[in-house]
Amino acid sequence: MKVGIADTTFSRINMGKIAINELRKICSLPYERYTVPGIKDLPIAAKKLIDERGCDIVITCGWVGATENDKLSYIVLSMSLQLVQLMTGKHVIDVTIHEDEAEDEQELLVVAENRVREHVRNAVDLLLNPKRLERLAGTGQRQGYEDVGEIRR
Amino acid sequence: MKVGIADTTFSRINMGKIAINELRKICSLPYERYTVPGIKDLPIAAKKLIDERGCDIVITCGWVGATENDKLSYIVLSMSLQLVQLMTGKHVIDVTIHEDEAEDEQELLVVAENRVREHVRNAVDLLLNPKRLERLAGTGQRQGYEDVGEIRR
Amino acid sequence: MKVGIADTTFSRINMGKIAINELRKICSLPYERYTVPGIKDLPIAAKKLIDERGCDIVITCGWVGATENDKLSYIVLSMSLQLVQLMTGKHVIDVTIHEDEAEDEQELLVVAENRVREHVRNAVDLLLNPKRLERLAGTGQRQGYEDVGEIRR
Amino acid sequence: MKVGIADTTFSRINMGKIAINELRKICSLPYERYTVPGIKDLPIAAKKLIDERGCDIVITCGWVGATENDKLSYIVLSMSLQLVQLMTGKHVIDVTIHEDEAEDEQELLVVAENRVREHVRNAVDLLLNPKRLERLAGTGQRQGYEDVGEIRR
Amino acid sequence: MKVGIADTTFSRINMGKIAINELRKICSLPYERYTVPGIKDLPIAAKKLIDERGCDIVITCGWVGATENDKLSYIVLSMSLQLVQLMTGKHVIDVTIHEDEAEDEQELLVVAENRVREHVRNAVDLLLNPKRLERLAGTGQRQGYEDVGEIRR
Repeated sequence: MKVGIADTTFSRINMGKIAINELRKICSLPYERYTVPGIKDLPIAAKKLIDERGCDIVITCGWVGATENDKLSYIVLSMSLQLVQLMTGKHVIDVTIHEDEAEDEQELLVVAENRVREHVRNAVDLLLNPKRLERLAGTGQRQGYEDVGEIRR
Repeated sequence: MKVGIADTTFSRINMGKIAINELRKICSLPYERYTVPGIKDLPIAAKKLIDERGCDIVITCGWVGATENDKLSYIVLSMSLQLVQLMTGKHVIDVTIHEDEAEDEQELLVVAENRVREHVRNAVDLLLNPKRLERLAGTGQRQGYEDVGEIRR
Repeated sequence: MKVGIADTTFSRINMGKIAINELRKICSLPYERYTVPGIKDLPIAAKKLIDERGCDIVITCGWVGATENDKLSYIVLSMSLQLVQLMTGKHVIDVTIHEDEAEDEQELLVVAENRVREHVRNAVDLLLNPKRLERLAGTGQRQGYEDVGEIRR
Repeated sequence: MKVGIADTTFSRINMGKIAINELRKICSLPYERYTVPGIKDLPIAAKKLIDERGCDIVITCGWVGATENDKLSYIVLSMSLQLVQLMTGKHVIDVTIHEDEAEDEQELLVVAENRVREHVRNAVDLLLNPKRLERLAGTGQRQGYEDVGEIRR
Repeated sequence: MKVGIADTTFSRINMGKIAINELRKICSLPYERYTVPGIKDLPIAAKKLIDERGCDIVITCGWVGATENDKLSYIVLSMSLQLVQLMTGKHVIDVTIHEDEAEDEQELLVVAENRVREHVRNAVDLLLNPKRLERLAGTGQRQGYEDVGEIRR
C-alpha cells in the first residue's frame, strides 16, 4: 500500500514536508509526493497519484487565501476532490488551511502543523486501522484545534 | 439485502450507534458500519459500502459545524451524495444535524436521536415497504421535529 | 410510452395525486409512481423510474421549505435532476413549490395545483406533441401563475 | 454539418426564430429546432439535438426571470450546458437574456436580437471559420452591447 | 509533447499571444492555439485540444468581467476546467484576469502579462521539470503579483 501527498507552491508553509515527516513517524508505508502551483491543481494531482502512481489514498495539502476568489476556488477544490474519490474509489483526505482562520502567522503555523499531522494519522487509520475510527465515532474530534468532545445527557 | 451506515468522528453524538439500535428494533436486515473523520469523507464511504461491501441502501450520519466553511462543506456533501446515488443506482439517505439548529446541546440530542431513528425507518421502508411511503405522500412529514401535516382546503 | 411520477412525504400537498389526475384527463399513457421522503431523494427516484421501470419521461414533484438549508437542498436537487437527464437521455420535468412563494396556504394550494397540471401537459407535449411547444416559443408561458406574454415592438 | 437551435416557451421573445433567421442569412447549413418549456429543459434538449439528431453545434436561447430562484436556475443551466459539451465533445453556445439587464422592454428586444445574431455568427465561425475568431482574440468583443475593445499601452 | 493554448475574443488583452511568446522563450515544445468567444467556451476548447489535437497540457486564458453574472460564469468555468482535467487525466492551467482586480487598465496590463508568463512557466515545469515545483513547495509563490514567501518561526 502507498500513500500520495499533494501540495502547492502557493502555500506559505511546507505542508507536504510535515505530512511526510508524520507519515515516517507512525508507519513504514511508502509514499509519492506531487507538488503543483495552487489548490485548483490538486484534484488532478490526486487523480494522477492514484491512477498513474498506484497510491491507495491521497492527502492533499491546500492553502486558501483570504479573498473572495480564493474562497470560490476552495469550493471548486472541495467538489473536485469528491469527484476524484468517486471516480477512483479511494479516499482523498483534504487538509486545508484558510489564511484568515488564525490571529497571526505564528498561530497559523501551529494550526497547520497540528492539522496536517492529525489528518495523516486519520489517513493511515482509514487504510490500516478502521476500527480505531469506529471507536472514536461521535466523540467530536477536531483537526488543528482541540477536540470538542461528545455531548452528554 | 444489507444496510450501510456511515458516520463520523467529528460528530458530537454517536449517530451511527443510534442508527444501528433503531435498525435492530424494526427489522432483521444485516448492516455494515463505516466510520470516517468528517462529512467530506462520507460520500466515498457510502460508495464503498455499496460497491465493496454489497449494501443496497446507505444511511449517512453527518454533523455540520456552525462556521461558514462548515456550511460550504455541507453543500459539497449534499451534491456528492447525489452523485453516489446516480452512479450506483441506490438510495443514500442523508441524516444531517446542523450544530446551530437547536437552542442548546440537550435539544440537539433530542433532535438528533429522533431524526436518525425516523430516517432509518424511511430507509427500511424504501427497501421493504415502498407502499407505506406512497400512503404518506403529501402529508408534511418531518424528521427530527413534529410533522407539519397536509394543507387542507 | 410510460410516464414516471415522483413525489415526497415532505410535501404538504399531494402533488403526485394531482399529477396522476391530470395525466388521466389528457391522455391514456401508463404511469409509475414513486414516493420518497424528501426532495433530495427525488433524483435517484427519477433515475430508477427510467432505468428500472422503463419510463420515457419523469415528472418530479418537490416541496421546498423556507429555511436557508431548504434552499440549498433545492439547488442540489436542481443540479442532480440535470444529471439524471444527461445520464439517461430523457426529460425530467421538475415541478417545485416553494413554501414561501405565496401569501397563505390557500394560495399555495391554487399555485401548486395549477403548476402541477400545466407541467404534466408540458411533459405530455414533449413526448407526443413537440410541435405545439414550438408554436408557443417566445410567448412568455408561466406555470402556476398567469402567462406574461410576448414582448411586442 | 448541422446546427441545433433550442429555445423555450418561457421566453418573452421568439429567440429561436431570430436565430434561424440569422443562420439563413449567413450560411446554408441545415438546422434542427427544439422548443422546451423553460431553461432547465435546455441542457437535455441540446444533448438530444447532438446525440439523436446529429447536430455538430447547438445554440441554446434562454430567458432568465428576475427572481432569486430564476438566478439559481441560471447557474444550474450554465453548469449543465458545460456537462453537455464535455459529454458530447461539441460546442454549445449559450445565448441568455436576463429579464433585468435592460431598462425597459424595448431595450430588451434590441439586446436580445443583437445578442442572438452575434452568437449565431460565433457558432458558425467555430464550425467553419475558426481563424476569424483567432484574429479577434483579445479585442474585447461583446454580444448584445457594443464591443469594448483592446486595452492598449 | 504538445501544449494547448485557449483564449477568448471577449478578453481585452491578447493573452494567448503573450502565452505563445513566453512558451517560445523558454522551450521548444510545439503548441496548438484555439480561440473561442468567451470563458464558458474554454472548457470544451481545452477538452478538444487534448482529445482531438493531442495536447498534453492546456493553458486557458480567461477574462472575467465585473458584473455578478460574470462572477457566476467564472465559478462555472472553474468547475468545468476541473472536469476536463479529471476526464482526460491531464493538467489544465487556468489563467484568469478579473477586470476589477486592478486600479486601472495599465495595471491590469502588467498583472495580465506577468500572470500569463508565470503560469506558462508553471505549465512547462509540470510537464518537463516537476522537481523544480517540489523545491518551491510552501514558499508562497504568486502569479501576477509579488511572491509572499514562506511563514517562518
